[in-house]
Amino acid sequence: MNPFRALSATERTRLGRLRERGQTDRSTLYEVLDSGLICHLGVVIDGTPVVLPTGYGRVGDTLYLHGSSANRSIATAPGTEVCVTVTLLDGLVCARSVFHNSMNYRSAVIFGVPRLITDEDERMTAARVITEHLIPGRWANSRQPTKKEMAATALLALSLDEASVKVRTGWPSDDEEDYALDAWAGVLPVSAVIGTPLPDPVLRPDIAVPDHIAALEGRRVG
Amino acid sequence: MNPFRALSATERTRLGRLRERGQTDRSTLYEVLDSGLICHLGVVIDGTPVVLPTGYGRVGDTLYLHGSSANRSIATAPGTEVCVTVTLLDGLVCARSVFHNSMNYRSAVIFGVPRLITDEDERMTAARVITEHLIPGRWANSRQPTKKEMAATALLALSLDEASVKVRTGWPSDDEEDYALDAWAGVLPVSAVIGTPLPDPVLRPDIAVPDHIAALEGRRVG
Repeated sequence: MNPFRALSATERTRLGRLRERGQTDRSTLYEVLDSGLICHLGVVIDGTPVVLPTGYGRVGDTLYLHGSSANRSIATAPGTEVCVTVTLLDGLVCARSVFHNSMNYRSAVIFGVPRLITDEDERMTAARVITEHLIPGRWANSRQPTKKEMAATALLALSLDEASVKVRTGWPSDDEEDYALDAWAGVLPVSAVIGTPLPDPVLRPDIAVPDHIAALEGRRVG
Repeated sequence: MNPFRALSATERTRLGRLRERGQTDRSTLYEVLDSGLICHLGVVIDGTPVVLPTGYGRVGDTLYLHGSSANRSIATAPGTEVCVTVTLLDGLVCARSVFHNSMNYRSAVIFGVPRLITDEDERMTAARVITEHLIPGRWANSRQPTKKEMAATALLALSLDEASVKVRTGWPSDDEEDYALDAWAGVLPVSAVIGTPLPDPVLRPDIAVPDHIAALEGRRVG
């Protein structure tokens, strides 16, 4: 992170709010949303911004969010302006000057007014999409939700119409005269990876790691 | 992520806003803030929440944030209520029921009114703290900022007085009757790690990887 600039300098983000993005950016938007696992949902409660992490899932141009019906952010969000941000850290960029130290990252920012999903079929779809986004294959391999569990759950849909994506990749961008300095410059790559599955200590001993879980080992998340 | 509950079910977060936290939680708060590299800064602009990722640093009970003076979130934040959230993903929790699938994570949420730092010494301190948080040792090993670079930069201080931390660790919490099911259950650990330093292709060939950079390889971030 450049200590002097926010990660999202908002220039592109602002543009993103004002302009229709090209297809290239939309593909990147999907890629960022599909790679990340946690979003940060921002809502305004009593005039104060509240930013909480939560899971999500995507189908086409719809982002699904969920939460306990008792969760204040989730209860507040429907019908009000929210901001949902997903950020993936890809590297620490070491420049020759303090000013140009930075991060490589991918970040998606979505503005919009979420809709509370009321149709039971769509609610179940949203729950499935969110579960499958977190742990592919899990929906079919876990006990299905009961009516009581579903009743305790709010599910929201947010359009990706007003979304932008910002990406920094590559090497440091130093001032021309700084390239002669003695300072080392380069990138420290960062990646978040899923490790070896750890069985629940009270798992029935006859249950082996299923394929859909084994397949996740080594997968990059974000 | 439990598809049915937000990661921060807000119960503890709300408590955190209302009560003085014990020392244990304060240590955990520091640990989360010191482990993460990116925070999500939420501000309200024209009535809309705006959530952007940015770097930060901490000294005692002060969080330092920074940004280009032209950055609208950073320009808006001083004197207004903001929310700063840092979330670290530690694992995917695979339960026997869809409803109890979850994540292991650590999350810090800070509410407060940031102060725009105007004293030049404190501004330089804040810039150094943010740089050193991202890449320890980098401040002494990069060209120092010029007056012009500093002038282009806003630096903010946010008190940690009104902060809370929420942590989920360990195994799935299934309903009693579900432990008899055939479903595999356990945790897929997730960790973000710094990889091997990649030198800038135009780095002067006589400059080796310095100790402060080599020391970061393999370090967990978040």
